[in-house]
Amino acid sequence: MDPKARQVALRKLPYGLFVIGLVDGDKVGAFTAAWISQCSFEPPLVMLAVKKGSLGHAMIEASRRFSVNVLAADQKEMAAHFFQQRPRSGNKLGAYAFTPGSGTGAPVLDEAPAFAECQVKQVVPAGDHDVVIAEVVAVTVRRDAKPLLLQDTGFDYYGG
Amino acid sequence: MDPKARQVALRKLPYGLFVIGLVDGDKVGAFTAAWISQCSFEPPLVMLAVKKGSLGHAMIEASRRFSVNVLAADQKEMAAHFFQQRPRSGNKLGAYAFTPGSGTGAPVLDEAPAFAECQVKQVVPAGDHDVVIAEVVAVTVRRDAKPLLLQDTGFDYYGG
Repeated sequence: MDPKARQVALRKLPYGLFVIGLVDGDKVGAFTAAWISQCSFEPPLVMLAVKKGSLGHAMIEASRRFSVNVLAADQKEMAAHFFQQRPRSGNKLGAYAFTPGSGTGAPVLDEAPAFAECQVKQVVPAGDHDVVIAEVVAVTVRRDAKPLLLQDTGFDYYGG
Repeated sequence: MDPKARQVALRKLPYGLFVIGLVDGDKVGAFTAAWISQCSFEPPLVMLAVKKGSLGHAMIEASRRFSVNVLAADQKEMAAHFFQQRPRSGNKLGAYAFTPGSGTGAPVLDEAPAFAECQVKQVVPAGDHDVVIAEVVAVTVRRDAKPLLLQDTGFDYYGG
């Protein structure tokens, strides 16, 4: 299989972009993710691919919880910000204020238009990532917003 | 958790729409799916949520293979067509011509701008669906096309 053709084909799959919020004891963190989808109505479950060996992987394995911060179409900078690890300073993670989510304690970004909080049910090895299957235990919608789409950003973390 | 809030929040996750092509011996089939994402670069893997008890679920479990037909933004009718089971008639599945994919034999729609063929690695129970983790073994890109997005269609099979 030609690697270039593979990349072109796999990039035809559209994605959103989300900031995954992490907590483990006193530590908080966040990373930007695209490979996430709902996978069950009842109970409400999501599937999230998390890179093996990453900080996010370690924190999710340890704490078994995370938040999914939905980003609005005009919040591309927030997605880019969490491509790298950001230090906590008071109620900020990098440049953005957060609050511990009421359902899990995982950080939720104050500017995110909506977010879900999730408890991990299962972690399944899948190549260079793990597939994390998690139950949505709390949701908050703050305002209506058109979601940010990966293909509108010019970022290229996808498609192999 | 309020069911309405849950639905509104989960519908903030953007999705594409795809026709999943199925083969099992002489039988072919297809169904429209949104809950799919890449989940590994190397090897190239996708994760697909498939409803328990559905024909697609049975055929994927039996044959361990499927195709993912990417749809273009103007192919909403094709997505709607495969919300229900369609009979095969010669080289047509319902109203649309198909060809057996060279990588798996799973049907690929002649009008799809791109498609991937996948071999199942693992089936993981996840609520009312199963998560199917599959390796992309062949890809074809026929033409460039803006992908169809679920939120542009008005269809509502998502978000619980």
